[in-house]
Amino acid sequence: MIDRTQIPAVILIDSQMGENIGASTRAMLNCGLDELRLVRPRNGWPDPAAEAMSVGALDKIQPVQVYETTAAAIADCHFVLATTARTRDMVKPVYTARTASAELVRRAATGQKTAILFGPERTGLDNDDATLAHGLVTIPLNPDFSSLNLGQAVLLLAYEWSQQLIIQPHSKPQKITPDTLPVSHEKLVEMFERLENELESHHFFRTEGQKPTMIRNLRNMLLRAQMTDQEVRTFHGIITALTGNKKSKEE
Amino acid sequence: MIDRTQIPAVILIDSQMGENIGASTRAMLNCGLDELRLVRPRNGWPDPAAEAMSVGALDKIQPVQVYETTAAAIADCHFVLATTARTRDMVKPVYTARTASAELVRRAATGQKTAILFGPERTGLDNDDATLAHGLVTIPLNPDFSSLNLGQAVLLLAYEWSQQLIIQPHSKPQKITPDTLPVSHEKLVEMFERLENELESHHFFRTEGQKPTMIRNLRNMLLRAQMTDQEVRTFHGIITALTGNKKSKEE
Repeated sequence: MIDRTQIPAVILIDSQMGENIGASTRAMLNCGLDELRLVRPRNGWPDPAAEAMSVGALDKIQPVQVYETTAAAIADCHFVLATTARTRDMVKPVYTARTASAELVRRAATGQKTAILFGPERTGLDNDDATLAHGLVTIPLNPDFSSLNLGQAVLLLAYEWSQQLIIQPHSKPQKITPDTLPVSHEKLVEMFERLENELESHHFFRTEGQKPTMIRNLRNMLLRAQMTDQEVRTFHGIITALTGNKKSKEE
Repeated sequence: MIDRTQIPAVILIDSQMGENIGASTRAMLNCGLDELRLVRPRNGWPDPAAEAMSVGALDKIQPVQVYETTAAAIADCHFVLATTARTRDMVKPVYTARTASAELVRRAATGQKTAILFGPERTGLDNDDATLAHGLVTIPLNPDFSSLNLGQAVLLLAYEWSQQLIIQPHSKPQKITPDTLPVSHEKLVEMFERLENELESHHFFRTEGQKPTMIRNLRNMLLRAQMTDQEVRTFHGIITALTGNKKSKEE
């Protein structure tokens, strides 16, 4: 588990719709972020619309803090990033959501309190607020259709942050129980040989010359399935059903 | 620019709310995905609620195709992933959104048509639909608060896909000849059904109650082999040899 002080605060500035605050809270909690700060929410705070849209998330994060100014909201922070949809004429580092997340994790690990700023729905962050940040974050999206709503923008940042903490597992077949372990090669070869013998006696191999290649292709194909013990037993059952011939040692 | 044929189709199954279809479309277009297929949308199609929520995105993607069955919706696909919130007792590769995206890009680069399945809002994909997929995708989120709405789930997958193209120049695509393309789902399902019919008439399924599970397990096993066209023909040949019954349309 990571230390709570290492989790970036999400700071929503001049949000217009409680629904968007609620959706943002839900997205935060989905991704393990639990500190929300609001600067001048238009409909005040608390806001029943935010509560409803958060589907319980507002009750599970830390108490929301409300501020009059952005400067006050980030007063305790050491490293602040400002999300922005458009390139600005500012000499600041510009991060993607992914590189920003890596930087947030790196800073937090050295004891820095971090935060991410999000501007109001329509206009985004104003230049003064963006200027307060150490860097800008622009999510690379389809340039012809890049507008995200607030909850989606929070989700993508929160998601990227959470993925920094997870070691990406390789895509291997799940191994849940001993039942799903791949079968031993011995049993696999036994199955191959039974199938091949049945195919032989059913005149599947048109010529002796083709037979070795056909057998190789067949084995390659079945090997790729990485069959379990149970699946090999099922496959024996199929051969028995289709041919009417039991496996020699079949129980 | 990437070729349109390399873009995965997003397939929404039994969606209940037009608003969620609209939000999904918007998320897709944000990330450069432009092919939406619907299976049995509850409120029919077209749906004014979807149109309103898409904020124009529905007019900018390819015409939406609507299907009666999941099998029909993926008939032309070579590689299909099923998004799922919970671990299932299926022996299939399990991807994160990120590893799934890498695999989708890799497959598309070899000429495979790819798709991502999303189930209905409340319940997620049912087991039969998940069984049709080559792999599962689970987005790693806060285990204590992991429920995403449909639009958010589509956004995260679409976003990860788009980031593969932007950030990671993926490893060189394998040289692959038309012969080694995975078979289309249509031919695969035809093979499954023939096998299952033969097993039925050979009394393989001991009870009607066990049959659905046995069929699911069988399909999962054979799907993992990712058979080519030639291998599916060979498999038909095996069934013909073992049963003495020709495939109805067999040459």
